[in-house]
Amino acid sequence: MLALACDIGGTNTRLGLVRDGVLLSESTSSYANDDFEDFYAVAAAFLRERGESRVDRVCIALAAVATAEGATLTNRDWTIRRDRVALTSGADRVDFINDFEALGYAMGQVERLETQCLTPGRASGQPGPRLVLGAGTGFNASAWCPSRFGGAPHVVAAECGHMTLPLAGEVEFSLQGALSVGRGRASVERALSGRGLFEIYQWQCAQARRGPLATTAVEVSRLAVAKADRDCEEAGHVFMRLLGRVCGDLALAYLPFSGVYLSGGVSRAFAGPLSQDQTFLEAFLAKGRQADFMESFPVHLLLDDRTALQGCAEWLRLSAV
Amino acid sequence: MLALACDIGGTNTRLGLVRDGVLLSESTSSYANDDFEDFYAVAAAFLRERGESRVDRVCIALAAVATAEGATLTNRDWTIRRDRVALTSGADRVDFINDFEALGYAMGQVERLETQCLTPGRASGQPGPRLVLGAGTGFNASAWCPSRFGGAPHVVAAECGHMTLPLAGEVEFSLQGALSVGRGRASVERALSGRGLFEIYQWQCAQARRGPLATTAVEVSRLAVAKADRDCEEAGHVFMRLLGRVCGDLALAYLPFSGVYLSGGVSRAFAGPLSQDQTFLEAFLAKGRQADFMESFPVHLLLDDRTALQGCAEWLRLSAV
Repeated sequence: MLALACDIGGTNTRLGLVRDGVLLSESTSSYANDDFEDFYAVAAAFLRERGESRVDRVCIALAAVATAEGATLTNRDWTIRRDRVALTSGADRVDFINDFEALGYAMGQVERLETQCLTPGRASGQPGPRLVLGAGTGFNASAWCPSRFGGAPHVVAAECGHMTLPLAGEVEFSLQGALSVGRGRASVERALSGRGLFEIYQWQCAQARRGPLATTAVEVSRLAVAKADRDCEEAGHVFMRLLGRVCGDLALAYLPFSGVYLSGGVSRAFAGPLSQDQTFLEAFLAKGRQADFMESFPVHLLLDDRTALQGCAEWLRLSAV
Repeated sequence: MLALACDIGGTNTRLGLVRDGVLLSESTSSYANDDFEDFYAVAAAFLRERGESRVDRVCIALAAVATAEGATLTNRDWTIRRDRVALTSGADRVDFINDFEALGYAMGQVERLETQCLTPGRASGQPGPRLVLGAGTGFNASAWCPSRFGGAPHVVAAECGHMTLPLAGEVEFSLQGALSVGRGRASVERALSGRGLFEIYQWQCAQARRGPLATTAVEVSRLAVAKADRDCEEAGHVFMRLLGRVCGDLALAYLPFSGVYLSGGVSRAFAGPLSQDQTFLEAFLAKGRQADFMESFPVHLLLDDRTALQGCAEWLRLSAV
């Protein structure tokens, strides 16, 4: 059985071929959405390049809610219709899965992915769930849970970006005020996203009574990692502290004894400080008397660009009749 | 196959017989732990009363971590050894499950339990997970997830009581300060438990500069529900608001389209206000632009005392070879 796995992002679309539930890693390619009129053109170009006239199935991971007809990207003017995908690819069946569900399914084959351990020495491999969470354009998480009764694993889908941002102490309350302006509340992704990092930075500059130097989240993370600007650095610390706290809270919600995996562009931008600086890990462990218990959860950074494609492959494997 | 289901609490132990994975509801009994020297005596008395000389299996739900040997109750000086349970009951297999996991498994047979809907009219029965959470001596939750691939459902175990208590605004920050004294942080169960309710009440009295009238959490809830004391009432409102917010946050973590079920002694003590007063439901929905989405989750109160036994029955059914 040959299938097409697709990971449609706001900027790039990654595609790969899946044979019998296994992603053919040498088959994967990434395309800039701006170079194509629509998704069908990307899929057609990929299949042409690979010399495949058709596939049996298609699985598409994207940040959108799919209906019977298809899905519309939230951050790009692309509508993806099931019938047109079937026509373009020759597939009999076209499935849509949420981008974070795809990451969750990928956790079933995490040993095939490039990762970096942030907690070397912490016992891993204990049977249990895996949690994947990430800060990028927004924030979300999902959990992969092995079956206790010998069946297929289960992936828990979530909307964790909309949970309440957990803040404590006077300084953070001032941040909560800043993030809540015009919204009445501060959700997790108000802080833990690219835009969130930039708002934390703006708040930090206001606190320090200095004019902002950086103009984008990417600049903030770059200057923070390079230790080139103290407000960017401080914003980075606040970001990592909040990421560690939320990550710890979600670990308590899913008990990921087989590991926590950090994904997303903003998390990856902080790869250096996340592994060298203790801010993130201290906040992850800071659950009072549960600090020892929190040591049960190994934490990794997901470096692999093909994680969602791997998740599509696992979905195709599990859902094969 | 005849099995014994046991739900061991700090004060009472409930037992019931399970035939082929179905709890025989007329067989259930509750015993005061104080009347017995140990758990084996309770089990022996129950089997004698039911006229059963032995059972094939035993499943024990309790608030403790089980080892290969057995488990020790956290809030009572009872150790429960697997081998002695086997000896007392004649069972070949003795399983321990966490009390909240038992509630999670019970969600697979929720239609057999006595419940009260707090959101009449909200579409229920949509396929999807069920979330059970409860405030009693402590706080916890678990999620029951139907399989997408035709296998057994999965129950997600958690330690949600140790998550960060999500607070917002100046008044709540003062509460956070009070709940954090001597602990450095305020966890969810610092507020959402019997003891938490009492600490909220003490903080409320201090805010109002009035001496406390109630001396226990039970008194606080009774006076609050009877609208007999304004500080108890206000503490009850704060409690229900925080319960609604945490409940909403956890709904975003598990997406319980088949329903949220509130359990636990403190939740049940507020049954009246939870269904008549809007404090809880408003806080549950207060997720900014996600308010409409939050309406996807019907909310119920679990009134059934036999929920954990039902969960043991479902565990026995699923784990039968």
